[in-house]
Amino acid sequence: MRPAPALRPSSVSRVLVRRRVPGSRRHVSQRAPRSVAELLQWRPAENADDVVVHGFVRSVRSMKTHRFVSLGDGSSLAPLQALVQASHAETEGLTVGAAVRLTGSWVASPGAGQSHELHVGKVEVLGPSDAKTFPIQKKYQTPEYLRTMPHLRPRTPVNAVLLRLRSEAIASLTQFLAGRSFTQTHPPIITSSDCEGAGEVFTVTPVNHTPDHDEPFFRSQKYLTVSTQLHLEALAQAVGNVWTLSPVFRAERSDTSRHLSEFYMLEAEMSFVDRLDPIMDLAEDMLRSLSTSLAGSATVQDLLSRSRNSGSDLAPADEVRRRWEGLAARDWPRITYSDAVALLRQRADRFAHEPTWGAGLQSEHERYLAEHVGGGGGKPVFVTHYPRDIKAFYMRETEPAASPGVPGGATVDCFDLLVPEFCEIAGGSMREHRLGPLLDVMRRQGILRPPGFEGEGDAGPDRPSAGGLEWYVDLRRWGCPPHGGFGLGFDRLLSYLAGVQTVRDMVSFPRWHGRCDC
Amino acid sequence: MRPAPALRPSSVSRVLVRRRVPGSRRHVSQRAPRSVAELLQWRPAENADDVVVHGFVRSVRSMKTHRFVSLGDGSSLAPLQALVQASHAETEGLTVGAAVRLTGSWVASPGAGQSHELHVGKVEVLGPSDAKTFPIQKKYQTPEYLRTMPHLRPRTPVNAVLLRLRSEAIASLTQFLAGRSFTQTHPPIITSSDCEGAGEVFTVTPVNHTPDHDEPFFRSQKYLTVSTQLHLEALAQAVGNVWTLSPVFRAERSDTSRHLSEFYMLEAEMSFVDRLDPIMDLAEDMLRSLSTSLAGSATVQDLLSRSRNSGSDLAPADEVRRRWEGLAARDWPRITYSDAVALLRQRADRFAHEPTWGAGLQSEHERYLAEHVGGGGGKPVFVTHYPRDIKAFYMRETEPAASPGVPGGATVDCFDLLVPEFCEIAGGSMREHRLGPLLDVMRRQGILRPPGFEGEGDAGPDRPSAGGLEWYVDLRRWGCPPHGGFGLGFDRLLSYLAGVQTVRDMVSFPRWHGRCDC
Repeated sequence: MRPAPALRPSSVSRVLVRRRVPGSRRHVSQRAPRSVAELLQWRPAENADDVVVHGFVRSVRSMKTHRFVSLGDGSSLAPLQALVQASHAETEGLTVGAAVRLTGSWVASPGAGQSHELHVGKVEVLGPSDAKTFPIQKKYQTPEYLRTMPHLRPRTPVNAVLLRLRSEAIASLTQFLAGRSFTQTHPPIITSSDCEGAGEVFTVTPVNHTPDHDEPFFRSQKYLTVSTQLHLEALAQAVGNVWTLSPVFRAERSDTSRHLSEFYMLEAEMSFVDRLDPIMDLAEDMLRSLSTSLAGSATVQDLLSRSRNSGSDLAPADEVRRRWEGLAARDWPRITYSDAVALLRQRADRFAHEPTWGAGLQSEHERYLAEHVGGGGGKPVFVTHYPRDIKAFYMRETEPAASPGVPGGATVDCFDLLVPEFCEIAGGSMREHRLGPLLDVMRRQGILRPPGFEGEGDAGPDRPSAGGLEWYVDLRRWGCPPHGGFGLGFDRLLSYLAGVQTVRDMVSFPRWHGRCDC
Repeated sequence: MRPAPALRPSSVSRVLVRRRVPGSRRHVSQRAPRSVAELLQWRPAENADDVVVHGFVRSVRSMKTHRFVSLGDGSSLAPLQALVQASHAETEGLTVGAAVRLTGSWVASPGAGQSHELHVGKVEVLGPSDAKTFPIQKKYQTPEYLRTMPHLRPRTPVNAVLLRLRSEAIASLTQFLAGRSFTQTHPPIITSSDCEGAGEVFTVTPVNHTPDHDEPFFRSQKYLTVSTQLHLEALAQAVGNVWTLSPVFRAERSDTSRHLSEFYMLEAEMSFVDRLDPIMDLAEDMLRSLSTSLAGSATVQDLLSRSRNSGSDLAPADEVRRRWEGLAARDWPRITYSDAVALLRQRADRFAHEPTWGAGLQSEHERYLAEHVGGGGGKPVFVTHYPRDIKAFYMRETEPAASPGVPGGATVDCFDLLVPEFCEIAGGSMREHRLGPLLDVMRRQGILRPPGFEGEGDAGPDRPSAGGLEWYVDLRRWGCPPHGGFGLGFDRLLSYLAGVQTVRDMVSFPRWHGRCDC
């Protein structure tokens, strides 16, 4: 595993590919094209010939005898500078956006900037581009404008950096969790229950289905999952600690910079764990590992080096650096909801909404906590033990002995993880693993209906209907150890680490209320 | 990265966990529970005290003074043998299925089988089980029966092995593709086009949506993706070689052992590639790497060591071993469709369906090719260059010079990858990257409609409507290099490697026509 692709300039000249000779079983080796990132790192003592590179023309500057071509291939924010004789036959094809293959000599550059430049002998235009109509221009283009063409937007240099960040983050997290012996799983996307979605779920129907005439494809209404947690709990009872990086769906009509209708969640579930701390430890260790493993990568250096006019509205590099350092720091603060509310009430004059025990924390409250409890260094903050009534039914109630002095009622063993600016990026809890207490809460919340109730669900005559969650209740009947876990908004985390202001610009093909282009 | 969790018996005794002391910032170290797999590998020179293990009771054998408890935790197919005094206070809780924590001494065992056994001093029943009603029994249970309870099925020992195989395969493939500088991506699940699904697609609607009164959530009908390829092509134009492991969906009403309505596809797209061979090379190298990296893992050894009565109907171990060796072998045969049909016609008497140029290959034909062209060693076989008319619109037509002597018409640069018994597990092609030829095919196939056509799609007045694929056509307008890729049925591959007879038993929560339990 190489979370950050290793660039070994000294070995670049030896990169060869085996190609099978068409029509035979023989292989020949020939020099492979180099990526722009590799070439930019390569400073050979002598000029090198027969260097092949391919990519997209970012800009062309015409001189009397030469054209200066900036070439990008997504491997680095900086383009490669190539020099083409104006008299070259293919020069006309070197238009902005064109896909080309250039062959030439890698020559020490006399000018400032790049140490070497490519003196092109051979130009091959592999995919021509009508530069006049090409919607992606080198000049600054607003995020709103670029968002109207998600199929072309990834071609902007900054968006290619974001794609690489996602890839390296996935590889790093996969490595971390494999090292902790977590089993990666694929819980289902189509599910039978809409309990958790608070009405904001999508249903799934075959396109040719006519309700009046056909038998339904499935036996009852099906939904797109809003969280894989419930299924992860079942899998944790098989192999212990499990995780997934899975798309989830919310039919939210809200129009914010932090919500999408389709997004990726990293969810982890720990088995045989009886306290909240090990779960927070895992989230903390995982994000710290992510930050430290990627911080030195070329991708993160690209993020920190880009200027504002590089094609996207990113947060200032200093702020982004603070975020990476905050995640790499040790001992993230943990504060109970009750203590947090008490702290906020001391500063009540700062807030539009009065902080009140029993109510959810407003964004302004979360922002204050993330900034001040974390000590200003960008450290994330865990807020724990929220009131029972504002959290999900499956969360385990805190033992009274463990929450002395809590005013107003019971709390649950849960946490939200807050980061400066972005607020919540993860949330977790202990799950109620005992059958009786779980049934009590589900009954109180109206999820559970008495036996014989006329409704959906596959419960037998002797078991209460639980809105498609009978199987989830079942998990408590035969050997359910204490367990808990968390879900982390993966796209939101990447936005935070990239300095992207809205998840809509972090996700290549974002879907939200009213928008599903391409 | 450790695709196969490394078991280091010598270091097991030193495993410690840092635990934060509740209410303080102090950490203490204490001995972590060991997994059953770790313990079974651990043969200390002297007996060890204070050994902690947790898991689920698989069976209990009562003797006069002792109970022999088989304990499983999903980490190994073999259970741990623990010895509990019959007089122990908690003995009554040691029922089949119960989740327990056992503490005791790891003692050299006098009997055959396991080298050591746990002499239990302390029993903690963390999740009781009513063994009389527990649906998962130690005796053989049919796959059909277990399929009725997908939430409990993962607890059978063999299903835990399948979960681990999936996890290790993901980690191995992630490592391989990162090592080749492929960018892992998250293409969208909700899409705008149903072109590719041949009518067998799911639509997506918010649950509270009433068509007559509400404005639609999205501006036009949306679908669940049947393949991420088209979006991967857009991303490949940004960062070069890309891949994804993504759920895809088909509303197929067929009832076979090889199809699900929801399954995972590994799709890869290579940019700046002008021939089919490098794409087949990638698929071949990737699967060979998977096979060789996992072949020695404890998980694969579990698969090869299990007996038929271990709770699932797996293929014989010899057959499974041949599959792993076939994937590890070099130089998989590549045969054109035309040559394959000629070969099949020489054996026409063996088949129920006559092999005919221009028609799709039947399963019996594919099975014959996979077995005989591959040389009987379990090697997969690439069948290339199928007729234009039976393949997807986006495939590039073979240049006449490259397909001499092809009877009956044009072919496309594509391949199917066949394996013995299972037939197709992957398919790929060069994509038509030139605007004109792509539009021609789309027009011929009725995907493209003239400008002004009254239909869906967001095409402007000057652009033809392409059923939601205008953006895909757009990719060819500005710098589209030659490219191609493949899609691999991930669940099908895992079934093949595990010896599972149907994908329904490889996927924890399978969805197919009429079935979406839990």
